[in-house]
Amino acid sequence: MQTVATTDSADTVDLGPASGLSCRECGERFALGPIFACEACFGPLEVAYDLPSGDAEELRKRIESGPENIWRYAPLLPVPADVASKPNLNPGFTKLVQADNLARELGVTGGLWVKDDSGNPTHSFKDRVVAQAIEAARAFGFTTLSCSSTGNLAGAVGAAAARAGFRSCVFIPHDLEQGKVVMAAVYGGELVGIEGNYDDVNRFCSELIGDPAGEGWGFVNVNLRPYYAEGSKTLAYEICEQLGWRLPDQIVIPIASGSQLTKIDKGLQELIKLGLVEDRPYKIFGAQAEGCSPVSVAFKAGHDVVRPQKPDTIAKSLAIGNPADGPYVLDICRRTGGAVEDVTDEEIVEAIKLLARTEGIFTETAGGTTLGVAKKLIEAGVIDPALTTVVVNTGDGLKTLDAVAPTTGMSAVIRPNLDSFREAGLV
Amino acid sequence: MQTVATTDSADTVDLGPASGLSCRECGERFALGPIFACEACFGPLEVAYDLPSGDAEELRKRIESGPENIWRYAPLLPVPADVASKPNLNPGFTKLVQADNLARELGVTGGLWVKDDSGNPTHSFKDRVVAQAIEAARAFGFTTLSCSSTGNLAGAVGAAAARAGFRSCVFIPHDLEQGKVVMAAVYGGELVGIEGNYDDVNRFCSELIGDPAGEGWGFVNVNLRPYYAEGSKTLAYEICEQLGWRLPDQIVIPIASGSQLTKIDKGLQELIKLGLVEDRPYKIFGAQAEGCSPVSVAFKAGHDVVRPQKPDTIAKSLAIGNPADGPYVLDICRRTGGAVEDVTDEEIVEAIKLLARTEGIFTETAGGTTLGVAKKLIEAGVIDPALTTVVVNTGDGLKTLDAVAPTTGMSAVIRPNLDSFREAGLV
Ligand SMILES: [Zn+2]
Ligand SMILES: [Zn+2]
Repeated sequence: MQTVATTDSADTVDLGPASGLSCRECGERFALGPIFACEACFGPLEVAYDLPSGDAEELRKRIESGPENIWRYAPLLPVPADVASKPNLNPGFTKLVQADNLARELGVTGGLWVKDDSGNPTHSFKDRVVAQAIEAARAFGFTTLSCSSTGNLAGAVGAAAARAGFRSCVFIPHDLEQGKVVMAAVYGGELVGIEGNYDDVNRFCSELIGDPAGEGWGFVNVNLRPYYAEGSKTLAYEICEQLGWRLPDQIVIPIASGSQLTKIDKGLQELIKLGLVEDRPYKIFGAQAEGCSPVSVAFKAGHDVVRPQKPDTIAKSLAIGNPADGPYVLDICRRTGGAVEDVTDEEIVEAIKLLARTEGIFTETAGGTTLGVAKKLIEAGVIDPALTTVVVNTGDGLKTLDAVAPTTGMSAVIRPNLDSFREAGLV
Repeated sequence: MQTVATTDSADTVDLGPASGLSCRECGERFALGPIFACEACFGPLEVAYDLPSGDAEELRKRIESGPENIWRYAPLLPVPADVASKPNLNPGFTKLVQADNLARELGVTGGLWVKDDSGNPTHSFKDRVVAQAIEAARAFGFTTLSCSSTGNLAGAVGAAAARAGFRSCVFIPHDLEQGKVVMAAVYGGELVGIEGNYDDVNRFCSELIGDPAGEGWGFVNVNLRPYYAEGSKTLAYEICEQLGWRLPDQIVIPIASGSQLTKIDKGLQELIKLGLVEDRPYKIFGAQAEGCSPVSVAFKAGHDVVRPQKPDTIAKSLAIGNPADGPYVLDICRRTGGAVEDVTDEEIVEAIKLLARTEGIFTETAGGTTLGVAKKLIEAGVIDPALTTVVVNTGDGLKTLDAVAPTTGMSAVIRPNLDSFREAGLV
């Protein structure tokens, strides 16, 4: 890892309740700035807050009277108080779908909900995290937004930058499928293909950050990562608010880098601390694809260390073989009494179809992974069907059509007459 | 056209404020039932209401305290009062995006908004109309939902039926692109390909309605059409509520069958009548693609009659060569002082990119058509840039990637090093 010097302007940075950055490993504190690794121990930095003190009821009312997007939680996020008035995509406050049909199929009696983030502006949870990065970029005076991406993130950055008035320049492997290239390029920013794989793209971005060519650039998932990652807390806030300011008993979350899972836990802890929800136990479950299951393997083996894997799965948005937050995920799932599990590509496809067939929600492979794991853990008795359960759907099936195409098609092809229809045997 | 006998149960049908059906041509009244054409003159039927009387302020408060979806307007729709508690996809209350960047590019000073219906559950306005049809189907005791479709509608029906607990059987031309087939089939209903074009599919569906094989079937866009069509009124309600219970001065709407445009006008008229908005003039503008512009041609020629065309445009969801509501559209656009205009396929693609580049919204070809026409009419001085203007975006660019793919791609492909990046000339 590499550190970047704190900007001189750190004292004048207004990111609302964010009071600084702290090292997750050694606890060392730093001023707010475009840095992401501890100068003392190279551990990852995360945002520290002066959270609102005082009456919980008042804070709850303030949130409830806020906008119908993530900015209702501005008092708990690293953003200025007037964030809602700035041009941005206003993601969040997506539907928490009460999934009674699915619950019946899975034998869940305690209540089952799908948090459906396909409803975000570019149809994935990435809009939440990019929106935070944009505010940090404004605060630090960056004029270009950038990232390394294998698809979803490139589009989220391109769209957010366009609306917020930033230049964008995004890096992807040069051999990405055309559909994903179009989704990322249509917003008019620069889209640069790198001859190499995703690791090469990442390495190049790290070089660029230290080079004059990258001056004034905010890389949402590198030098803005501490702020970016905080966006996932809003999933926790929304789930609890939409449940009537209640913690769910069990929550199932996909694992890519593991950041989302750790930030959802952080968000739940904050709600407890602020008195916005009752302090009672909840269990967090992590979901991986068998073809990229380093955290699941470590969990089952009882290890604290995550051994990297070479990914081979249709769940491409989860295919991070060396997940940075893996050890934290293990810790959270163990501490809360949850688990980490993985499913095969076939189970992922089955779960995508199960959710579509029961609730009319078409999820991408990451969502199929999460629901597949939920199903597997319910069947194994690890997830208690008598308790409330929330499954997080992070994206949209339109983005991974290829995963279901081979097994999804027409029931019949007929001639345009009633005899031909009757022969098809559908009535 | 063909009429279907009213069911015996018509007296017990509870569709909230809907009091019956009335003929748009001769005014003849009919009981609520799965019928769509006047027995006297074969004119199209539409829903008549006993709208809430009494205090406008009270009604406004009732709406504002309702759910964040179309059911907040249940008192104005042909649905039972408890509709929000039934399983459905809960579409609507999509974002009204204040498009300041776009306004600057177009020289609009009076305020420009994009009503972004890509935020609906299956990412098009079709979710609004299908949700109404579902409630009518429940009321009439249908158990299978059906439609003829060239794509978007098939998915909307499949998804809504899955969640609401209906069987679905949807008919499409057999040679539809694989992506659209997957989007329609993934929800697990029957998807039947018809050997023929869309006209053949439609003709087959009409036959099926009169046949025992189609008993108990609700065809959302045929025998449930009067109810289905009312869903578009919610676009009018939402636009006005989101503007702070104000009518926009100008509103630009795409024309396929023309139904949506006429129902938005109907919705605006209802808000005026109910005292929910001030009674003042507004102008409605209709948008078509040059390759399917029967209404635009008639408007410009000063004709009352719409001469059918054979469609040839990339805006496939608008490619109805003989639009049923064409004459009504002409009447509304003339009466309000608006206009109907068309743009070329090239202008459609340009407008898609313009919206993406300025506001981070990726629209499909129908939205490109609407914005393209808005741009053309602003430049021609027909739309007044000093007045408030709303452009309706009915769908999502992910569904028509092919339209922009040929002209959208990477800015550069480089080797993973800084020298190669500098040579690309992007910094
Ligand atoms: Zn440290
Ligand atoms: Zn009549």
